[in-house]
Amino acid sequence: MDLKNFNMKPSLPGGTRDFSPLQAEKRKYLWQTLENVFRSHGFMPLETPAMENLATLTGKYGDEGDQLIFRILNSGDFLAKADAQALAENDAKKLSPSIADKALRYDLTVPLARYVVMNRQHLSFPFRRYQIQPVWRADRPQKGRYREFIQADVDIIGTNSVMAEAELVEISRNIYKTLGLHQVVIKINHRLILQGMAEEAGIPEQFGLLTILLDKLDKIGWDGVLESCLKAGISEVPMRIIMDYCQSPETLANSNHPLIKQGWADIEKILSVSQDMVAFEPSLARGLSYYTGTIFEALVLDPASPVKSSISGGGRYDDLTGIFGMPGIPGVGISFGFDRILDILDGLQLFPKHIGHPMKALVVCMDEVAIGAAFQLSATLRQHISGIELYPAIEKLKKSLSYASDRKIPWAILIGSQEMESGQWTLKNMDTGQQESLDTENLIHRLSIHAPKPEATQ
Amino acid sequence: MDLKNFNMKPSLPGGTRDFSPLQAEKRKYLWQTLENVFRSHGFMPLETPAMENLATLTGKYGDEGDQLIFRILNSGDFLAKADAQALAENDAKKLSPSIADKALRYDLTVPLARYVVMNRQHLSFPFRRYQIQPVWRADRPQKGRYREFIQADVDIIGTNSVMAEAELVEISRNIYKTLGLHQVVIKINHRLILQGMAEEAGIPEQFGLLTILLDKLDKIGWDGVLESCLKAGISEVPMRIIMDYCQSPETLANSNHPLIKQGWADIEKILSVSQDMVAFEPSLARGLSYYTGTIFEALVLDPASPVKSSISGGGRYDDLTGIFGMPGIPGVGISFGFDRILDILDGLQLFPKHIGHPMKALVVCMDEVAIGAAFQLSATLRQHISGIELYPAIEKLKKSLSYASDRKIPWAILIGSQEMESGQWTLKNMDTGQQESLDTENLIHRLSIHAPKPEATQ
Repeated sequence: MDLKNFNMKPSLPGGTRDFSPLQAEKRKYLWQTLENVFRSHGFMPLETPAMENLATLTGKYGDEGDQLIFRILNSGDFLAKADAQALAENDAKKLSPSIADKALRYDLTVPLARYVVMNRQHLSFPFRRYQIQPVWRADRPQKGRYREFIQADVDIIGTNSVMAEAELVEISRNIYKTLGLHQVVIKINHRLILQGMAEEAGIPEQFGLLTILLDKLDKIGWDGVLESCLKAGISEVPMRIIMDYCQSPETLANSNHPLIKQGWADIEKILSVSQDMVAFEPSLARGLSYYTGTIFEALVLDPASPVKSSISGGGRYDDLTGIFGMPGIPGVGISFGFDRILDILDGLQLFPKHIGHPMKALVVCMDEVAIGAAFQLSATLRQHISGIELYPAIEKLKKSLSYASDRKIPWAILIGSQEMESGQWTLKNMDTGQQESLDTENLIHRLSIHAPKPEATQ
Repeated sequence: MDLKNFNMKPSLPGGTRDFSPLQAEKRKYLWQTLENVFRSHGFMPLETPAMENLATLTGKYGDEGDQLIFRILNSGDFLAKADAQALAENDAKKLSPSIADKALRYDLTVPLARYVVMNRQHLSFPFRRYQIQPVWRADRPQKGRYREFIQADVDIIGTNSVMAEAELVEISRNIYKTLGLHQVVIKINHRLILQGMAEEAGIPEQFGLLTILLDKLDKIGWDGVLESCLKAGISEVPMRIIMDYCQSPETLANSNHPLIKQGWADIEKILSVSQDMVAFEPSLARGLSYYTGTIFEALVLDPASPVKSSISGGGRYDDLTGIFGMPGIPGVGISFGFDRILDILDGLQLFPKHIGHPMKALVVCMDEVAIGAAFQLSATLRQHISGIELYPAIEKLKKSLSYASDRKIPWAILIGSQEMESGQWTLKNMDTGQQESLDTENLIHRLSIHAPKPEATQ
């Protein structure tokens, strides 16, 4: 045992969190809601390991992303294979691949692509999978930004049909409604429409730049976008044309430009099968360059929401797996911002009331002779009623009851020598303090009447 | 984009695994079974981050354990703060703490201790928590041993009462029975009984060594234990005394040795509230030195089981949090071998049949005009029946139906222009090929009759 560690004050690495039972329960509720909706649409779970080979991850997220990948130091004598030149030059960036050949998952898309390539012979396409797992990024920790956080992705791989995006939009709606988030807009747009607008405005070669700058519209408004476009070398005249289009979507719907027409045909189909919550938004850009068709993004409109940025986003990509030597596999996916949605549910108080307090009754054994009876009664009650906890020690009654109060358990069932003799258990209402004597059958009946409906989280 | 990565053949780091949908479903089933039993006894979930400060972990698992901790390379210019002397000496072991100050969780016990110390003001004791999360160890990968694997721990912190261990034994029984593992023995013993035997045999000072060697009994038998004890310097006469005790537990039950008496009193109480599956086994040792009272270990007795080693184990410890400066907190815990239990359920074919094939019907849209109707019918059916999947593209019927066969979906519902006109959907039995025409109401009725009971995994 290392004496240095003795009496140390323990702490957590920056940007990481413990989740207390109450917080963990809330996370479980959201996790299960997502999973239930995904599963009800025929999506199957996929799990990939936390560690990937470094080479699988590097080069996929841009230079900035590469810097944010957590690398795992090789075990044993990692210096034996270290890049001697990099060591001599004191060049950490150059040295690191030679002493760390594994890294932590940075998102769920690259692992999905790797999985599809490695298992293509065994998959039925269109392959529908959901994946809810933590990812790690060496971002500077700040409010609402963590180094370990959950991504919840749902993708349909191997079809060009717009029915796939329509289904993902429907899944998003189902999720938000199930969570009680009714004031949400799911914006949809199409890369071809953006490209068509850029051509109509005479700046097709500035399309990539345009989408990156347009992506900031929510944060900086049209004035800000215009200003940054001018700075970046996109002139005012084409920008005015694009702004006009964005502010009158109906002109796009009636456009004869072949790209806009093609994009609009997809959008129209999605809108025709979608009901409320969905809106065509021609200014929606999504910064990521790998989207090639429809794009989505959802925002909470409720002014009381603590989160103003998007809570889910995604789109269609033509080539998921080309990077791993298997080109031509299209797909469409949406990623849900698990931690952001949790913050919103917390802020808007949308968690079901029972969450964190699932216990119905605490069985309290007051006497050594009653231990067996207390175990047996607890087991019997559990067969009829969910949420029966046995206090695991014989202590002063005050202490056991104060535990019940702390944990907000509404009933206590007391068992001592007196109860053993009479065969009648003492049921105490923790709110009112009232007590009554009941045999097992009546106890079950009594607790059942007051039992809440079966819990969503169990 | 890094051109080196282009066309690379992707692979996984050694000792890590992807879990395909079918495997992930099986894992989910076990996860949920464990969770349901833990929760039904009033245990609440705790989640801790994958990364801990290196100092939190080192010195807790012995020298050998320390070598197996995965360290995370500091981000940015990690060489700036590197130990210059260690670098000059080419000493990887000495260098590593200066370039890697975080590490991956190695077990769930140290994070629990850290959590309890950091949050003691906010916890209600006895604190019951369960935690099911992956841990990482840089072990040499081999059959059945992985570098990333799940631990499922359940602990009661803050009580000396033997009721706590009795409840953990009951939880174990409930779990194994729920999983259909009826041929299991949960061996229990007590450190004080082992200590008493060592005293009775006249080798109290060799107690620690004895438990380590005794722990190998299952693998090497009494002859092997005797041989290795002799080698290690424990003589034959005391070993014969200990072997006699172990082979006639009733002499221990009647012993007057104060330690054995005290230990037996606990064992007797546990046995008195436990029913089948539980057996006193005085040779059970558990190698870990931090156990101070009752110890448990469960084995599968079914000769067809692919796993012969223990599937859960645990015990009582007097001092969980002393290492973090908070002495005197006792507790008792059991850890379930998630991956081993999965292997057994697989080997004994104990997974429920529906696992991996949760879908009941595939809705197939055969015509552009029917897309809206197909979406609407799918949504309606989902309100009544679980497991309705919409094929997300319009393709040759043969292709859609072969997808249904691949996924073992028993029914297909076909919607084309003809069905749109008649308002009658075509229901195809994928086993027999038989087709019938039904309106929505009759379709729901037809599928409900054949619906399996609500799924345990959903």
